[in-house]
Amino acid sequence: MVPDDLIISASDEVAIRKHLALVALGKKPADRAIRVGRLLDTYGRNWHEDQEIIISGRRIAWVGPAGAYPGTVGERIDRSHLSAVPGFGEVHKHIESSHLTPEWEAALVIPHGCTWTCEASHEFSNVEGPRNLEFWMTARRAGSLAKIFPLPGSAVPPTAYEWGGGHYGFAEQDGFLRDHLAVAGLDEVMDWPAVWNPDNPSHERLWGMIEATFANRGVVEGHAAGMRAIDDINAFAGAGMASDHEAWTSQEVADKLRRGLFMELRPHSLKDIVAGLLAAGHGDWSNFALCTDDRSASDTLKLGATDHNVRLAMEAGLPLEIAVQMVTINPARHMRLTPWVGAIAPGRYADLVLLDDEARLGIAEVWADGRQASRGREYIAPVPQIAWPDWATKTVNIARRLTGADFAIAAPQSAAEEANAALLRPFHWDDTFTTTSLAVVDGEVQRDASRNITKFAIVDRFSGEGKTAKMFWLGTGPKTPDTALACSMGHDKHNIWVVGSSDEAMALAVNTLNDIQGGWALVRDGKVLATVRYEVGGLMTCRPAPELDAEMTELYCQGETIEWMYEPTFSPRWWPGFPERLAFATLTCAPWRWVLVAPSPLAPDGFVNVQTGETHKVVW
Amino acid sequence: MVPDDLIISASDEVAIRKHLALVALGKKPADRAIRVGRLLDTYGRNWHEDQEIIISGRRIAWVGPAGAYPGTVGERIDRSHLSAVPGFGEVHKHIESSHLTPEWEAALVIPHGCTWTCEASHEFSNVEGPRNLEFWMTARRAGSLAKIFPLPGSAVPPTAYEWGGGHYGFAEQDGFLRDHLAVAGLDEVMDWPAVWNPDNPSHERLWGMIEATFANRGVVEGHAAGMRAIDDINAFAGAGMASDHEAWTSQEVADKLRRGLFMELRPHSLKDIVAGLLAAGHGDWSNFALCTDDRSASDTLKLGATDHNVRLAMEAGLPLEIAVQMVTINPARHMRLTPWVGAIAPGRYADLVLLDDEARLGIAEVWADGRQASRGREYIAPVPQIAWPDWATKTVNIARRLTGADFAIAAPQSAAEEANAALLRPFHWDDTFTTTSLAVVDGEVQRDASRNITKFAIVDRFSGEGKTAKMFWLGTGPKTPDTALACSMGHDKHNIWVVGSSDEAMALAVNTLNDIQGGWALVRDGKVLATVRYEVGGLMTCRPAPELDAEMTELYCQGETIEWMYEPTFSPRWWPGFPERLAFATLTCAPWRWVLVAPSPLAPDGFVNVQTGETHKVVW
Repeated sequence: MVPDDLIISASDEVAIRKHLALVALGKKPADRAIRVGRLLDTYGRNWHEDQEIIISGRRIAWVGPAGAYPGTVGERIDRSHLSAVPGFGEVHKHIESSHLTPEWEAALVIPHGCTWTCEASHEFSNVEGPRNLEFWMTARRAGSLAKIFPLPGSAVPPTAYEWGGGHYGFAEQDGFLRDHLAVAGLDEVMDWPAVWNPDNPSHERLWGMIEATFANRGVVEGHAAGMRAIDDINAFAGAGMASDHEAWTSQEVADKLRRGLFMELRPHSLKDIVAGLLAAGHGDWSNFALCTDDRSASDTLKLGATDHNVRLAMEAGLPLEIAVQMVTINPARHMRLTPWVGAIAPGRYADLVLLDDEARLGIAEVWADGRQASRGREYIAPVPQIAWPDWATKTVNIARRLTGADFAIAAPQSAAEEANAALLRPFHWDDTFTTTSLAVVDGEVQRDASRNITKFAIVDRFSGEGKTAKMFWLGTGPKTPDTALACSMGHDKHNIWVVGSSDEAMALAVNTLNDIQGGWALVRDGKVLATVRYEVGGLMTCRPAPELDAEMTELYCQGETIEWMYEPTFSPRWWPGFPERLAFATLTCAPWRWVLVAPSPLAPDGFVNVQTGETHKVVW
Repeated sequence: MVPDDLIISASDEVAIRKHLALVALGKKPADRAIRVGRLLDTYGRNWHEDQEIIISGRRIAWVGPAGAYPGTVGERIDRSHLSAVPGFGEVHKHIESSHLTPEWEAALVIPHGCTWTCEASHEFSNVEGPRNLEFWMTARRAGSLAKIFPLPGSAVPPTAYEWGGGHYGFAEQDGFLRDHLAVAGLDEVMDWPAVWNPDNPSHERLWGMIEATFANRGVVEGHAAGMRAIDDINAFAGAGMASDHEAWTSQEVADKLRRGLFMELRPHSLKDIVAGLLAAGHGDWSNFALCTDDRSASDTLKLGATDHNVRLAMEAGLPLEIAVQMVTINPARHMRLTPWVGAIAPGRYADLVLLDDEARLGIAEVWADGRQASRGREYIAPVPQIAWPDWATKTVNIARRLTGADFAIAAPQSAAEEANAALLRPFHWDDTFTTTSLAVVDGEVQRDASRNITKFAIVDRFSGEGKTAKMFWLGTGPKTPDTALACSMGHDKHNIWVVGSSDEAMALAVNTLNDIQGGWALVRDGKVLATVRYEVGGLMTCRPAPELDAEMTELYCQGETIEWMYEPTFSPRWWPGFPERLAFATLTCAPWRWVLVAPSPLAPDGFVNVQTGETHKVVW
């Protein structure tokens, strides 16, 4: 009996591979033969004409010239008009950012060629850390065709100033790697101050995870955002980081690559980077991969998935063959997953992208686990029906109703009419925060819509108490009165963030999210204008992508009835209108400094410099 | 306190890397700065001019433009007239085949650029399996500058028909990988019939080792000698083998590469292979490495070490940069050793090959562990003095004196004057053995020097009993009467083989090896003409290479006084004269079939077909 081969394990692997050898030799029958017009060997970057791929179970047993396989075959499929390349892989992606559960995300991205993902798992693990691997294995165990290789998040919690959901150190990471062979390593080490600085309160926790990863021969993934100084890059590489996906320019990539960092290029910068390196004469792409990192289902519906990234690389000047290597063998080799993915070769999962247009990467069909999964853009394999359990669907835990009072900011006693207030704005990376003076009314410090100053809060969704940290923000949020927008996805701790023009609206928005167990809520004048449900982990929904997209579209439509603040800034990361990117403006990793987090022992008011640990009053 | 950093461990790694990050940032002082004229980045295959390498302990802390390092430096060294490439690595080498202990092998090969080796460890482990890792760590622990990454041998024992020395299965391999982070995987899986055939008596043992390797994220190295049929290649790759180093032609390489096998090219075939692939337009060398496999100290003195392989690749048409990648980043990446070797990048061991002639790979100096190890061909670092313990030096265990009677082959009762005899010849790969008729004298079957038929024996050196298997061989051995040659290195089981023109000479030769605890012995007319001492494991000697070479030279000189048989054959693996290659003609892995092994439970007379398990009488 050959194992069902959904979850990778060493003992199953032995049974499967013993069987595959006999199938290749023709001593046992194969399930299926697919004849293709040509086939790309990603190990040598060569095409082979008129080939046949022999499949047994979910794996490839034999590859060679059509008609040459010596054994018997259950079913013969002719795709001799198509060209085969291996299933695409993501070296660094947060599936949570699609806001779909893994089985629905698979149905969305597989038609775009993506059959395997190194899951950068610090979203769900910040919400429900102990169940993280169980979560990622559930869809696969139920038969989903996507292979997920989870890398437990190093940012659990993201900083020592955050808490709840999950707490990973040496013991947890060691357990993950020992228990699951599919775990490839440690996900992006983001908290650089905690890595280099022995005084940082997260230092030992992080190095514990790194040690466990070394000990189990895993890969330590890096995240070197904004890191351009060569001393920092050297220190980062010397600290054992194996990669970076945060570089923006070809010079930054060159500086990091030569210090031994595997380069993972993201769509917003990859064209410039590839074109720049090509112009400089760069010729070796074997330490490069393409990656999506974060992309919503709505964006994937518009742009594509991994195929979009490959097309961008081709547009920047790379030939198809190299661009495909950057989403197949290169990431597989970097992540030490070559036994399973990255090539149309024996032993690997039978994941094929069949092209009808090589020049434009036209995808006619995708096969995964040895079966046809898509025709054109349509996913045609069954999506497993999963009743996600309470530990996945009951993750917004606020055991009371919030009121406007929860969001009031009391003035200091000395300040009868005006108070000093700290001011942040989205993507605020300065060493210090801004200070301003705000009016005091009835003992409470007030917003100032005329200056685009509004109120922003982070509400703890883990303790049950609904602890609230709040302060004033500049240049974001509703100008329309009595309006608020809240969301349970707030990278990376994923407490609820809320921005609003009245305290009552903020309370209503958060209470609404508590009721629907996560997602988005837009409220005005005491009414809920729109919601989007992320009922799994407060991050994802268990529905088809178009349904989610329709709900998001309705939210944006309602959002257009609101007047939004905008304060021009030098930062390219902020734009006018609906403040969707606030979900990323709550990040606390380097190069962030002053941020607002939920009240915590080290930051009771939530206002903290995460690089130094310094705290400050929000008003004084 | 930063650990001494000789033996790699996860916890030491953490301490070292915390320290390196602070050195890179200039917050702690560095030990040494080496300024070089230019430096090859093997991650991107680009040169950088006027660079400085900052060293802390044995590692690189920082790399960048000369003068730009922000910290303080203990010592500044100017090599701005030289070009730096990373220390060379061997992806597959049997250090035992140098016949030097690791500390002396290091002194021999480091001046040739080789600073790290994936030790293909089934020689010593067939002799003293339980101490195998201890053996490989000893020289390093004593301060030897060579980094050894042992891969425990899958061929321990080589077949189910051999025994003694070591026996590795799941438990042993799992222990090796868990206990030592430097263990990269499982060494060359050679016994292909045991892999694919469930009825083979070594099947479960071998798959146990493979399972343990998968479970610990190690690399399963292959050995696909003579495997050219694409069904076999597919089966081999599907069985989980990650590499092959046995291909002889560019077509064979292409066929294996595209099935997902990492290709390790050996010197005797690499020029043809590289030239052939280049002629066919092959352009991606990222899944290729160069390797030495077996090379004696004498040959290294003549030819060079890894540098010789690189030069051959360059002569075949590869640019220096790609050839260097094939002995640095490529093997490091394949073996998952990138945190330690393969690049001049932070975190890696400070191993540098400094070239004064790029076009001809002229090596001026080699640095290892951050210190200068060689000047020209001279090794200038200290060689640790190691008193190898008894478990290493007392490995020839024959608790009695052999006599001529031990080598007599009794005729069957029915054969008064003539008997049928099975006949093998070196590198005999046919499905069947040859049969001949030989004279019987005094009840014993006789050699026939006129037809180049002599006697060959394998003497068990593990049990203490000196059990002897013997038969007739064709076309090898002394024609001179009363002469014998014996050796304690007989791949891969490393019992003693002996070939001789009289039974008494054979006994004397073996007794001599028992006295000196291994090596070579040439005897004639009751006298010992020459010996070579391999007093460590019966395979190596703890002496400088020139001393061993002088002893070998004397053996060859004495060998020239002997008349040697030679029977021309189609096989290119056999040549006239001193039968040194008999050490390899005792191999029992695929594609070998009929061989002679020491008497064992499954092959009491020692004459066995190792692919089928069939045994046969040697005379009848």
